[in-house]
Formats: sequence, structure tokens, C-alpha cells
Amino acid sequence: MIQSEKILSAVRAQSALIHNITNYVVMNWTANCLLAVGASPVMAHAGEEAQAMTGLASALAINIGTLSEPWVKSMRLSMDTAQHKKIPIVFDPVGVGATSYRTDTARQLLDDACPTVIRGNASEINALAGLESTTKGVDSVDASNLAIESARKLANSYECVVCVSGAIDFVVEKNKIYEIKNGHPLMARVTGMGCAATALIGAFVATGESPFDATVAAMTVTGIAGELSAKKSSGPGTFQVNYLDFLDQMDGNLIRTYQKAKLL
Amino acid sequence: MIQSEKILSAVRAQSALIHNITNYVVMNWTANCLLAVGASPVMAHAGEEAQAMTGLASALAINIGTLSEPWVKSMRLSMDTAQHKKIPIVFDPVGVGATSYRTDTARQLLDDACPTVIRGNASEINALAGLESTTKGVDSVDASNLAIESARKLANSYECVVCVSGAIDFVVEKNKIYEIKNGHPLMARVTGMGCAATALIGAFVATGESPFDATVAAMTVTGIAGELSAKKSSGPGTFQVNYLDFLDQMDGNLIRTYQKAKLL
Amino acid sequence: MIQSEKILSAVRAQSALIHNITNYVVMNWTANCLLAVGASPVMAHAGEEAQAMTGLASALAINIGTLSEPWVKSMRLSMDTAQHKKIPIVFDPVGVGATSYRTDTARQLLDDACPTVIRGNASEINALAGLESTTKGVDSVDASNLAIESARKLANSYECVVCVSGAIDFVVEKNKIYEIKNGHPLMARVTGMGCAATALIGAFVATGESPFDATVAAMTVTGIAGELSAKKSSGPGTFQVNYLDFLDQMDGNLIRTYQKAKLL
Repeated sequence: MIQSEKILSAVRAQSALIHNITNYVVMNWTANCLLAVGASPVMAHAGEEAQAMTGLASALAINIGTLSEPWVKSMRLSMDTAQHKKIPIVFDPVGVGATSYRTDTARQLLDDACPTVIRGNASEINALAGLESTTKGVDSVDASNLAIESARKLANSYECVVCVSGAIDFVVEKNKIYEIKNGHPLMARVTGMGCAATALIGAFVATGESPFDATVAAMTVTGIAGELSAKKSSGPGTFQVNYLDFLDQMDGNLIRTYQKAKLL
Repeated sequence: MIQSEKILSAVRAQSALIHNITNYVVMNWTANCLLAVGASPVMAHAGEEAQAMTGLASALAINIGTLSEPWVKSMRLSMDTAQHKKIPIVFDPVGVGATSYRTDTARQLLDDACPTVIRGNASEINALAGLESTTKGVDSVDASNLAIESARKLANSYECVVCVSGAIDFVVEKNKIYEIKNGHPLMARVTGMGCAATALIGAFVATGESPFDATVAAMTVTGIAGELSAKKSSGPGTFQVNYLDFLDQMDGNLIRTYQKAKLL
Repeated sequence: MIQSEKILSAVRAQSALIHNITNYVVMNWTANCLLAVGASPVMAHAGEEAQAMTGLASALAINIGTLSEPWVKSMRLSMDTAQHKKIPIVFDPVGVGATSYRTDTARQLLDDACPTVIRGNASEINALAGLESTTKGVDSVDASNLAIESARKLANSYECVVCVSGAIDFVVEKNKIYEIKNGHPLMARVTGMGCAATALIGAFVATGESPFDATVAAMTVTGIAGELSAKKSSGPGTFQVNYLDFLDQMDGNLIRTYQKAKLL
């Protein structure tokens, strides 16, 4: 069993600096999720300081949600620095597949510097891997199988961990798959839940635990916080507020009581 | 009577993609309002993908709140694409009248591509139309009359719908004016309520209903959600949270009970 | 005794326009804090309108949290305009000391236009002043003394007020130090509390009261709102919501009951 409780404690003990180059839409939410769980966020995107800031951090989270050329250039500089200094990189291919600019940019960034973890939804992971559903109206088992195949392909290409998040989250490494059944449909009604999960994975990987275990722990924490928040909420507004409170309150007791994670 | 309930149901059934090029201040709030009402937001502003992203969307919402040249260029590309593909454009002239850069940019954008709906407050609509109050301390009837005259002028120039939002919202087309008396003063104490209304109009227009009816429906929903939230709130913080919950909970029953909309 | 209640009333009576060139992470939060306290925020950063917008404002708040060259250029233009028009400038040196780009940029901006108030945490104020703790594990009295020395050095160099915020806030002028012991540890678990305090100082200085008194009043209000919110909150999510409500509800009675401010 993966020790999510122990990894969460390490996140809080270290309160590690996580350098985020992320999208405008979710910056505030991402910073608040990192603070709520016990980590220290920093956002900085200027080419003049990207490398210096990454060099101070214990993990780098890259998210291409609102990309443009100056930002892509800084993402490249920061990823390069992280790779040379062995700082873990978590990469979020937001919207890959929607436009060729996104797909091409994501692939170029990943070709230049190997990520430690990639996290996206099924459609992004499929598009990044170059696999696409050939049939309309695939059922959910087929859809999961395709996403897992895509994740495994990426995990092999980049020698990294891949997390496919959705109603069920899958964490995939070369020879290993974990599934996490925590979470709630209200999470899809709030912007940036996936983007914040990417940053949280950064905080968990920054502990030095194995990237696979850290990713499972981060997704377990986010899923349980989502579930508990949904129970207390009357809609997506109260949900957001409660979610931050539950990230703060998450502990071994809640994890042991609610986690639905297992090796497949 | 405009069937706001029916149009809201269509918004939710379609969950249409709304492409927003909007200001930094309100991006998160706008995305969350769109999600709460049942639509699908996307934000993307790079020149490299603006046209491709607009081409995927069912409506384009343009907001010049924090404009700069690279963004204006992308707004132009996206508006051009929307016009050619007959994708409705909702335009928000934030701060027009405050600086000549804003006023000139807004007019140039609108001259290049005709909007489907323009939404602003009275001062922005007056400035965009080139009409200004010549007397100090005009009373509220005079102020409304001036704003309606400005709206009608813009509606004729651009052959579009114009919404003037304020304590009373007016929706104006060539020969038609609707007034909506929903809403609450707390709405003016939260940033981005107008900007989010613009995006919501995008979601309602995306249903294919007439832009006039869709705009009335969107403003009715936002006004009622504002009223109900204010009743439950102890200040602008709780108001925001409740507003998102009420956008999610809005239904035919609430609309029929609370709407104060009529043809003038 | 500084009349914080009277200055707060003036903020609300004037509802002055505060021009913010601030970081992406906190823009929404900052605008909402200004609205909640009763001021009128505007954000605009384009070189084409920076000077015009500053010219309309009653205070300029500059925050370098997510700086890049085009923004620095506009900060310079706006600060220059403010200086010539005698519009107060509040400067927030976010992250100074973390990278040389930040430290150099902050110093250049301050050399070009004298600020009215500088607000930062102890590490930023020390780095900006060029003083650094030479011993590891300094106790909190030593740390406070160093920060006050740094603040006094900056206050003398720039002939301005300097606020060092932290568990205890210090407001420093050439020959005067005030300490404010309001606040709560939860404030450090929400992003942008310091950035919003900078903007609130702008709103309070805009009243025309002495910058020293206005800064003490702003920090008193923010500290009391933080304390009261923390009491009502179950975590950093509910805290944010309550904080905005308390900024709105703040009044002479709450200030007189809770303030812990005194001249040292």
C-alpha cells in the first residue's frame, strides 16, 4: 500500500517551494491549493528570471493552458534548468489536441526535457500520445483502455509517470498501474481542478518519494478533498471554498477512511 | 414573453464551448460562472491559435479589460474568424471612455467585425456611441434615456443587440427595448460581474436562439442569481460563493417566480 | 492615537480610483478587496494607456510579483506620471532577494520615482535595503530589529513610509515606528494577502491623510479583518470569503474593540 499519509506529512514538514509557470485562469486557485495543502507556491515567467527561480525550487510545474511564445520560451528555460539540476518536472498538457499549436508546443517541450510526471485528462493524454479513438460512442471501458494505452506509451517514451485524471484516475508507469476512485462530479464544474492537481503532484514529488507513489498520494488527497467538499456543498461556489478547507484538514485518518486506491 | 427557462435548458443541454479572450482580473471568475451555468469555457489568446480555437467554439466573448497590442491582434483574428464562420460574437467594451487607447481600440475592433451583442455599463455604452451627458447631476431618468439612445445608435450602426447593464438592465435592438429589473447592489461590489455576464450572454447566444431573446435570458438569470445570493449573504465574499451556487441551481421555477423583465 | 476609523470613512466616502499594475496571481483578489473596503479598482498595464490611466487615479499601486519587461516599462511610465502629478505611489517589492532580476528591477523603479509607501515582508524589505541576516537561526527579536533597521534605511533613502508586514506589522518613517499586532496565522495560508494590503494602503493614502497614518489605518483594518475572519473560519477557503465580508463590515466599533496598534 502506498503511504499517502506519510507523503502528505512530508509535504507539510518541508513546505517546499514549487515553481509554477501556469495559465492565467488558474494561477490564484493553484497558489491557494498549494498553500492549503502546506506547500509554498511561486509564479514567475520572465525569461530574465525563469532559470534562477526554478533553481530555488524543489519542483517545477508547467501548464500550457494559456500559452504564448514568450511563456513557451521561459517554460523551455525552466525545464532545462530543472533537468540539469535534477529538480522534478510535472507537465500539464492543457488542451493538447484542440489546436495544432498546443500539440506541437507540448511535444517540443517534452522532447527537450524529460518530465517526471505528466498529468492530463483522457483526451489530452490520447492526443499527446498520438492515439485517438477510432469509433464514435466508445463505452467507458474502451475509453479507459485507450487512455491507459496512451499513458503507457508516454510513460515509456519519456520514462516518466503519467496520470490520467477523470471519474477514475489512473497513475501509470512502465509496468504498473494504480487506479484511484475518489473524487466527485462537482470537481468538473470548477475551473482549474486538474491544473491544481498538477501543482499538488509537484508538491508531493518534491518530497523525494518515488514519483509514482507521490502522484498516487496527491491524486488520493485531491480526490478525497473533492468528495468531502461535495458532501458539504450546495453548488460549485461552496465546493471551492470547502475544497481548500479540506486540503488544509486532510490527515491520515481521512485518508485511511476514504481512500479507494489500488494497484491494477 | 421571452422563454428564458427554455433557453437556459438549451445552454445546459449543449454545454457549448465559449471562447473567451478576456481580461486577467476576471478570467477565473468568468470560467467558473460559465461552468456553473452549464457551459464550457476556454481561454486562449496566442496569435498562433486564436483562429483555430475560435473555429471550435459556439460563441466568442471579447473583453478589453486589460488589453495590450498582442491581445488586440488576437482579438482581431478571432473576431474575423467568428464573422466568417458565423459564430456569434459578444463584445464587452470595458473602460471605454477612460482612455483614448481603449476607445479607439474598441471602435477599430467593432469596425472590422460586426458583433452579435455588445454589453457594457451606461458610461461605456455612451462613450462607445460618442454621446455624453452634457449636464452634471443628471437624474436617473435622464441617464437611462441617454444610455438607451446610445444603445440604439450602436444597435443601428452595428446591426446588433446592445445590453446596458446597471441597476436596471436594458436590452436594445433596432425597434425593441426590454428592461430587466432583477439584480442587487452587492453585484457592484464584486469585480467581474459584468464581464461574466458578457460571457454568459455568449453561452445563451450559442444556443441559436435569437440574440435578443438570448441576451434577455442571460441577464434575467444573472440578475435573479444576484438577488437570491444577496439575500443569503453577509457581504461580497459570501455573495460570490452563493452566486455560483445559484447559477448552478437556476431553473424554470426560480425564473418564473423572480423575473422582472418586460418589453418597453 | 491614529484615527483609523476616520480614515476608513474617508475611503468609503471618496471611493477613489486606485490604479493597480500588479501580478496575475492576485489581480482578482486585489480588486475584490478594494471593492469590499469601499474603493474603486482599475487594472491596466499597456504602455499605450498606463500614463492616461494613472492620471485618472487617486493612488497608484505597483506590485512586481509576476514582472516582465513590457510590464516594467509600464510601471515606470505610470510611476513617472504619478510623481509628476503628485499621485501617491505604493510599491510592493514581491520576491526581491529571490532573483537578481527582481532586486535590480525594484531598485531601478524606486530610483526613478520616489514611492510614498513601500510594503513588503521582512525578507523583501531586508533584501531591498541590502541588509541581510548574517547569522542563522536569529531569534524573532533580532529578526524584527533587522527588519526595522532595513525599513528605516529605505524610509530615509526614499523619504517614504515603509511597512514591514508579518506576525507583527511595523510602519516606519524617519523618526517614528508604529507596531500593529492584529492579524492571524491563517493570513499566510492565502495567496495575495500582502499584495491586497498594498492596494488597500493605496486606497487609504488616496484620502489625503498623512501616508504614515493612512498606512497604519490600512494595516489595522486588514489585521482586524483577518483576525475576525479566522475566528469564523474552518480553513483557508472559508477564511477568504469571510475576509471580504469583514472588509465590507469593518467599522469604528470593530476598530476600537480590536485594534492593537501603538507608537514604539
